[in-house]
Amino acid sequence: MTAGAAAGWGFAGGLRRIEAAEIERQILALSAFGRPPGGRFEDGVSRVGYSDADIAGRKFAMDLMRSAGAAVRIDAAGNIFAERAGSDPSLPPVLFGSHIDSVPSGGNFDGDLGSLASIQILHLLNEREVRTRRPLSAVIWACEEASFGGIALNGSRAAAGKMARGELDQVSNGLRKADAIRRIGGDPARIASARIEKGQYHAYVELHIEQGGTLERDRAPIGVVDGIVCIDHHDVRITGFANHAGTTPMPGRQDALVAASKLTLAVREIAMAESGAQVGTVGHMEVKPNAANVIPGEVAMSVEFRDLSAAKLDRLAERLRARVAVIAKESGVTIHMEPAVRNEPAMASADIQRVIEAAAGKLRLESRHLPSGAGHDAQSMAPLMPMGMIFVPSVGGISHSPKEFSSWQDCANGANVLLETVMELAS
Amino acid sequence: MTAGAAAGWGFAGGLRRIEAAEIERQILALSAFGRPPGGRFEDGVSRVGYSDADIAGRKFAMDLMRSAGAAVRIDAAGNIFAERAGSDPSLPPVLFGSHIDSVPSGGNFDGDLGSLASIQILHLLNEREVRTRRPLSAVIWACEEASFGGIALNGSRAAAGKMARGELDQVSNGLRKADAIRRIGGDPARIASARIEKGQYHAYVELHIEQGGTLERDRAPIGVVDGIVCIDHHDVRITGFANHAGTTPMPGRQDALVAASKLTLAVREIAMAESGAQVGTVGHMEVKPNAANVIPGEVAMSVEFRDLSAAKLDRLAERLRARVAVIAKESGVTIHMEPAVRNEPAMASADIQRVIEAAAGKLRLESRHLPSGAGHDAQSMAPLMPMGMIFVPSVGGISHSPKEFSSWQDCANGANVLLETVMELAS
Repeated sequence: MTAGAAAGWGFAGGLRRIEAAEIERQILALSAFGRPPGGRFEDGVSRVGYSDADIAGRKFAMDLMRSAGAAVRIDAAGNIFAERAGSDPSLPPVLFGSHIDSVPSGGNFDGDLGSLASIQILHLLNEREVRTRRPLSAVIWACEEASFGGIALNGSRAAAGKMARGELDQVSNGLRKADAIRRIGGDPARIASARIEKGQYHAYVELHIEQGGTLERDRAPIGVVDGIVCIDHHDVRITGFANHAGTTPMPGRQDALVAASKLTLAVREIAMAESGAQVGTVGHMEVKPNAANVIPGEVAMSVEFRDLSAAKLDRLAERLRARVAVIAKESGVTIHMEPAVRNEPAMASADIQRVIEAAAGKLRLESRHLPSGAGHDAQSMAPLMPMGMIFVPSVGGISHSPKEFSSWQDCANGANVLLETVMELAS
Repeated sequence: MTAGAAAGWGFAGGLRRIEAAEIERQILALSAFGRPPGGRFEDGVSRVGYSDADIAGRKFAMDLMRSAGAAVRIDAAGNIFAERAGSDPSLPPVLFGSHIDSVPSGGNFDGDLGSLASIQILHLLNEREVRTRRPLSAVIWACEEASFGGIALNGSRAAAGKMARGELDQVSNGLRKADAIRRIGGDPARIASARIEKGQYHAYVELHIEQGGTLERDRAPIGVVDGIVCIDHHDVRITGFANHAGTTPMPGRQDALVAASKLTLAVREIAMAESGAQVGTVGHMEVKPNAANVIPGEVAMSVEFRDLSAAKLDRLAERLRARVAVIAKESGVTIHMEPAVRNEPAMASADIQRVIEAAAGKLRLESRHLPSGAGHDAQSMAPLMPMGMIFVPSVGGISHSPKEFSSWQDCANGANVLLETVMELAS
């Protein structure tokens, strides 16, 4: 095993790539942990972070890492690192990986693909005795999904030093977060030790399914992520006047649901009024008193805009506020709109985007740029090191569902683009 | 006491009328039964049909009936009749009254005004020893509100022979309907005996608060009801596709809530597109999965139109169905619209409307015609005898709320129009 072997990677074509059948075998094997009782692969998975199924899946992944010759360690937040030495130990390692926890009744690709492909890369290098210049580190982040008390990116946020005050004492389903972390081998008393410093790693790359329908629609096998969108979430409360649906003439009504309907359509209209990939959604609505024969007096609803540009989101929110004022006046209601959550966007490094593009080119895979509309652990890493993400198509754009699927060839394509990208960054 | 005394009624002005202070005293006294603990008159009442508060209120009313010299009987459905002989016992009596049960957290006027005014009429005639030609019968119908299993007009429907098959076995809040009727002195085993036959009564008249804002807006102290509207209730189920709110581009969405919002606005638009008193309401809406970050995949909602004309309702439903087809296509969803309840309209007798108008005229009270947008016991009587209703203004159009209020003078005006109307019909 020599450093020179790495130089012959890729263009030379001396080393075999990751096969679709290998990815399929690994994803099928992992799907057993958290599968519904008596279910099949198609029935999806409930491998909720910190659960018994998660713990069993993590053990499976760590065994794979060890059989790939990597040194496995769990940090204080429960993140798993598989470390492989480089020929120059003075250089910061290349970090790559994803997560293996799922939403309840989720699919077998979200997180799993990137995690298993990362381990497979270590396995391949180990098998062929290839030594990279930089050390490599494959990571499985703890509890990426918002399944513990509605908070997402649990492990990677701890690594970024972005846990909220008191978060370890938070309780979800009767379990204290500190105890949850202890369950998976973390050490909440030393949680600060999980923190990654700037300069500690050379770069972070994550392979993930798109979870949307853009790549499928554009028949592009590889997505190069520009960045992870900013989420601007508003809580809206509309107060009208509940009255008899039979005896209250139409003109005098103060119908909170009519106002909420106008607002829901305005959100869609505003999101679609300019070009770009921004999205706007009303996903949550509660009507009071919610009886067929009473005019709704109150509606609580969510409004969410997402885009890569915080400035664009400010513009959309401004337009929405203007519409809110008009709708309130027209409908004789009061509308209270409160900003609830605002995640700042996380831009992917332009250099890493170029490396990913070139890797796809080498493999003769068409690629297109797109933003990530979903949150990912990569956004926790973005402030600490150059970050990049590789997307593969999701069939029907479906995710967070047992119906989530990406073709095995698309999965293998993504894994090979990750392999080329890591090899380039590590050289 | 002679039959001749009745002839001198009204125009002659020999007999005093019902005073506002008398109505106020009686309504205040009845409000004690079902008032919230420690509450005041302004805190409204929960005198739900068949409850202890209802039973106490009924006893109070029966005592008042007896002190007015009437013979009190309870029929098998629990309806209370206060009967007073006429000079010609061969003639069918004039029936008039209302109800005293309330919705939970209701007001002190809905039903109470008409019931207490009817008893007050018997009291006045008894005091002045006036004998009408026809017998009189003041009625308090059992459980008018939809508080027992969501079904309204319980007592009057039994009297009209319109109970549903198995209704006596229906259970609400752990109480079987047959037992509920027994609690208030009815006899469920003999429920058929409560049935009123055609020709048994000469006419039915009911005084009630409007529960809407039309009379107040038009500054008309008396409303002459044209009829009780037909209710056309549809259950609508919209099926789109639940997907990630961040990763699903706007154009490909199948957002069930966007479709539901369009439909809600279409209902309002259709109801307002032609002149008339028709109303259209979406009062009930359930969104699934109802999470801020998931595009709604399913919405269940109610659509209700009300109008006096069944033909107009057919036309509105036809327009709605056309809009439903367009909205489904635009939004990429399927919309299933199912007719749920259709009450036929109950027209007031033209003759009785004229008698009411004339009565208001005698008292120099302006009157205007209007439909009743709410259901009333009078609609149960409409197929059995000529029916009429008198409305008085509701402050702010508010009803089914502790804020329900009608000025004492408006209450007395309505009571005196009822008095004049009954005297005319009984002569």
